[in-house]
Amino acid sequence: MASKGVIALDAMGGDHAPASVVHGANAAAERFPEFRWLLVGDESLITPLVKDAPLLAGKVEIQHASNCIADTERPSVALRSGRSSSMWQAIQAVHDGRAQAVVSGGNTGALMAISRHILRCPPGIDRPAIVSFFPTARGETAMLDLGANIDCQADHLVQFAVLGAVFARSVLGLPNPTVGLLNVGVEDMKGRDEIRAAAQRLREGSFPFAFHGFVEGTEVTAGAVDVVVSDGFSGNIALKMAEGTAVLYTHFLREAFKASWTARIGYLFARRTLAQLRNRVDPRRYNGAVFAGLNGVVVKSHGSTDAYGFANAIGVAADMVQQGFMDEIRKECERLNWKSDTAQPAVSA
Amino acid sequence: MASKGVIALDAMGGDHAPASVVHGANAAAERFPEFRWLLVGDESLITPLVKDAPLLAGKVEIQHASNCIADTERPSVALRSGRSSSMWQAIQAVHDGRAQAVVSGGNTGALMAISRHILRCPPGIDRPAIVSFFPTARGETAMLDLGANIDCQADHLVQFAVLGAVFARSVLGLPNPTVGLLNVGVEDMKGRDEIRAAAQRLREGSFPFAFHGFVEGTEVTAGAVDVVVSDGFSGNIALKMAEGTAVLYTHFLREAFKASWTARIGYLFARRTLAQLRNRVDPRRYNGAVFAGLNGVVVKSHGSTDAYGFANAIGVAADMVQQGFMDEIRKECERLNWKSDTAQPAVSA
Repeated sequence: MASKGVIALDAMGGDHAPASVVHGANAAAERFPEFRWLLVGDESLITPLVKDAPLLAGKVEIQHASNCIADTERPSVALRSGRSSSMWQAIQAVHDGRAQAVVSGGNTGALMAISRHILRCPPGIDRPAIVSFFPTARGETAMLDLGANIDCQADHLVQFAVLGAVFARSVLGLPNPTVGLLNVGVEDMKGRDEIRAAAQRLREGSFPFAFHGFVEGTEVTAGAVDVVVSDGFSGNIALKMAEGTAVLYTHFLREAFKASWTARIGYLFARRTLAQLRNRVDPRRYNGAVFAGLNGVVVKSHGSTDAYGFANAIGVAADMVQQGFMDEIRKECERLNWKSDTAQPAVSA
Repeated sequence: MASKGVIALDAMGGDHAPASVVHGANAAAERFPEFRWLLVGDESLITPLVKDAPLLAGKVEIQHASNCIADTERPSVALRSGRSSSMWQAIQAVHDGRAQAVVSGGNTGALMAISRHILRCPPGIDRPAIVSFFPTARGETAMLDLGANIDCQADHLVQFAVLGAVFARSVLGLPNPTVGLLNVGVEDMKGRDEIRAAAQRLREGSFPFAFHGFVEGTEVTAGAVDVVVSDGFSGNIALKMAEGTAVLYTHFLREAFKASWTARIGYLFARRTLAQLRNRVDPRRYNGAVFAGLNGVVVKSHGSTDAYGFANAIGVAADMVQQGFMDEIRKECERLNWKSDTAQPAVSA
């Protein structure tokens, strides 16, 4: 079978690594049988795990890396002294063309810093953004930036809109995604200057996707748009409030079903449907945050996830490679010719 | 019975006004029998409603106002030409000392603009902030600013911390509230400059409440602190994402219980406990957003709420009057002597 590509895995990143990484790769290999796998990390730990992973047989290469970056390491320190780490070497494999994507459950700040340092941004993109997706009333919605850029200008938000829309096309399989800007109201005069300026550019310019306008938090969860664009500060807070509220509601529900004998009986009857609901909002299903806007596919897995969650993060990377995410990004950036826009703000679209 | 105070009600504000306002006042009068009520609005509409409100008998004064401010009116227009409106006259009653608090379900922007214009901020407070509270895993948490101030400096966040803590003491009945700053991480170096500067002042200064440090969205819903402080942009987005996620979860739950016959039977047994859960997260229970930081108590009700919801907004105002919110604010501001701190840099609105 001809390989569709190679995915590099930072085998040492995450609380349950390398076991969660190798078992996750084995699970992902069932859904993506045409991929090959580059496992980077401590060979003596990885090799026995791979022997127990039947679906990886004949499709895996192990690259030894002598150390790994701690979760507590500052990004600046990781950047100076992390060259021999599993994370660095896995990203390097993408840069060298030996892999088409990298997945890591390690230190987020270090992963971003090293990815930016090694891979750089393609022409037309000033900064990478973190994008992920979550369930809404109408399906699934992608959101970015989730924390890479605390402060953003209008140009960055416009670039994020393109990155997010291409992501929605590649990973969520939506041919014509709609894009909204996260704001405190939907009227034109609402919000910060940079958001209003970005809205104007998305409305007037040659933006190749459907721009919906501003969206509020309540519309995000209702699924009013397929892609929600925000600065990294508000985006991170929005995501974590949604996560926290889901956890809270689950807690309330659990308490409610313990409140009386009739409620307990009700739980017994509803057990299967409640398990399906739990599965529907299981955060492991939505694991895999993409560092979009780099010359290469970089996916961050939650550090605390298990093999099932890690396999889903790998799935995001595999979808992006299969759907030609990088080629699409380059094409859209060329089409819009933003570099001239952002270099000389006086030039009109 | 000696009156504890007068609460002015904008009888014309809200989708179901004046009926929801008069019926809401009647319901609130049961919990707060020692208050008197000043109903401001169209006398010909209010008078017959009051006759059907037995608990208001002998405790109500009607002040005729010839018009009301539309929900679509721009705040600047309302400020220029709204003097004869029910909203303006109700706020004016607080300024004149004829009432100790005002509650309105009308146009939010107009209510803020007119309140600021008439009541002004007490010494030590530069800007009012919108504060409200919602359920968490450990009880109830207050949050501010929820949208009045899109951009905030460190001084404003510190002032919000005091306003929020006094609110938690007055309305939530917490003698020693803990305060956290909403951020994208809990480590010292995380977030924007103004947030880090505010944290330093709250840690070092004479802040009379317990400062917890930074909190993320997931900690907010877990109830890690009693008061969450944020700029109005992120605060508004955080609140609406939480509201939207609660609605989404309810939607998922409803779908789940329709999914099979066993689930429907389970629903029948669990009906009562699920109704209690719905009641626990009923937004009408948490109705009543306070414009804190003015010389007077101003409470905004949701425009779409009913009499039950409006009564809860009145309850927030009555709690604040009974607990001496304004006196506490003045005392805390004097104690901290902030005016000297904030007087130097001219902060633009």
